[in-house]
Amino acid sequence: MQELVRKALSGDTRSIARIITLVENESPYTEEIMKTLYPHSGKAHIVGITGSPGSGKSTLTDKLIHEFKEKGNKVGVIAIDPSSPFSGGAILADRIRMQKHAVDRNVYIRSMGSRGSLGGLSKSTYEAALILDACGKDIIFIETVGVGQSEVDIMKIADTVCLVLVPGMGDDIQIMKAGIMEIADIFIVNKADREGVERVVAEVKMALDLVQKRSWIPPVHSTIAEKGNGITELAASISNHHEFLSISTEGLEKRRNRLVTEVEEILQREIARFTEEKWNQKKTPELIDSLYSRNTDPYTVAGRILEEVLLEN
Amino acid sequence: MQELVRKALSGDTRSIARIITLVENESPYTEEIMKTLYPHSGKAHIVGITGSPGSGKSTLTDKLIHEFKEKGNKVGVIAIDPSSPFSGGAILADRIRMQKHAVDRNVYIRSMGSRGSLGGLSKSTYEAALILDACGKDIIFIETVGVGQSEVDIMKIADTVCLVLVPGMGDDIQIMKAGIMEIADIFIVNKADREGVERVVAEVKMALDLVQKRSWIPPVHSTIAEKGNGITELAASISNHHEFLSISTEGLEKRRNRLVTEVEEILQREIARFTEEKWNQKKTPELIDSLYSRNTDPYTVAGRILEEVLLEN
Repeated sequence: MQELVRKALSGDTRSIARIITLVENESPYTEEIMKTLYPHSGKAHIVGITGSPGSGKSTLTDKLIHEFKEKGNKVGVIAIDPSSPFSGGAILADRIRMQKHAVDRNVYIRSMGSRGSLGGLSKSTYEAALILDACGKDIIFIETVGVGQSEVDIMKIADTVCLVLVPGMGDDIQIMKAGIMEIADIFIVNKADREGVERVVAEVKMALDLVQKRSWIPPVHSTIAEKGNGITELAASISNHHEFLSISTEGLEKRRNRLVTEVEEILQREIARFTEEKWNQKKTPELIDSLYSRNTDPYTVAGRILEEVLLEN
Repeated sequence: MQELVRKALSGDTRSIARIITLVENESPYTEEIMKTLYPHSGKAHIVGITGSPGSGKSTLTDKLIHEFKEKGNKVGVIAIDPSSPFSGGAILADRIRMQKHAVDRNVYIRSMGSRGSLGGLSKSTYEAALILDACGKDIIFIETVGVGQSEVDIMKIADTVCLVLVPGMGDDIQIMKAGIMEIADIFIVNKADREGVERVVAEVKMALDLVQKRSWIPPVHSTIAEKGNGITELAASISNHHEFLSISTEGLEKRRNRLVTEVEEILQREIARFTEEKWNQKKTPELIDSLYSRNTDPYTVAGRILEEVLLEN
């Protein structure tokens, strides 16, 4: 395993890919791998790209990859797909246009399913980001689909959160006002050739005025990702925010909070694993029958299992 | 507490509201309340309404409330909002138009934030549905925003899942093909006065043909919720599916699986609570410092805490 890790640390794409696969599949080597990689991590700039389906996140990410690569950066991308609970399949259509980077040694793109029952975002996302970080990527983009919980989760992993909006989807602004406003460090109004772009930009700025003041004032960019318009300015903003984090107490706080989250995530997963095992032994058809007939209730059943996990081990 | 529960069981709206608040805030009475209510549950028809932001879910739900109320049903609504991890706030704008039902004794509407860090959908959604069920609601609508994990989660709670689409949002079909296709029992193409409605209906039907055959063939409805068009037919489909579940093995399986999920949800929450408590005791600034300086790593720290949890208790 140490040889594989060594090769990954030297930047070998194949070894990196294999290590992520091992960790994603919860290989028993995960702990060893991650402990070895950990001291090498903490240098990359992790950038979250989030927004509604159809907002053009993938195209935007594609252009940003190009932009940062041109500046001599090693780029990593983690694309999280909503996957079927049945087939485990992921949407690959959007990824195809990114494939042209795939032959490039300095760009590594990984699609991950949001598989997990326990914990929203793919449990492996954090590990994948950490692996790419340790293996020498300078900037790592994490792209998520959907609005809601995943935005909150991405925030915990990312240094810089970009929220992508498009004109003509009224609810976005609503959602933003409710909370995502506070999460995003950079706002992007994409498809800026559509009608209503000025209104969206104005609404975002207005909403920002109402939000609690921070030392970083989130810029609002208009882009037409398809044509590459506004990408250079956006990339500059992303780098600015990175610079800001490195010199501000806000940046330090963010990094420290992320460490707390990291430990919490591992703890929860491990304890959940224990409990799942126990529950799998217990959930007999007879037990389900007695729940079904209301002879017992889920609280009583769960209480008994919990007690056993904590007493027996 | 038993008096409050008794009044809620008799259908008293105020008592129901108070009980949901207690449970939502993780009152220590939760277990007692839920155990008392549980034997009275299992009768309501739980209907999930899901779809992208801007698809008109709230308007649709509003019309369905009216439709089912007219038929003499007691109606419950749980609207789940993406809320800020900071303010805990929820989007209420869409809810306002539902307020006219609020004075109605036979309709109970509850907005819930998707607060939780742990576990995707609001942890209290299941409890709120169970409370409304036990307290005599005949039909309960659960409305979720967003595409992704929440669809999967809602499926676990709902008897009948309605997926709302709109013409002109191409990515929806993509996402649907990837998995939500298999989740939905009823498809709704809303805003059917827009261009492209026939294409969306055709695409859904085509995609349904490719999906694994089930004994229930999901109908595809066109609606214009704003004008009330197609609502009666949709309501009939929802009732049909309920009827189907009550006589099919698929329905029995669904209810039994839900019981398994219920126990799992409780277990997860309890474990998370436990872990958090333990971690809060341990996470000193010094420990975070040594993580920050890479003198130790999250895996080592988590491993030590885990050991303590499993040995000490």
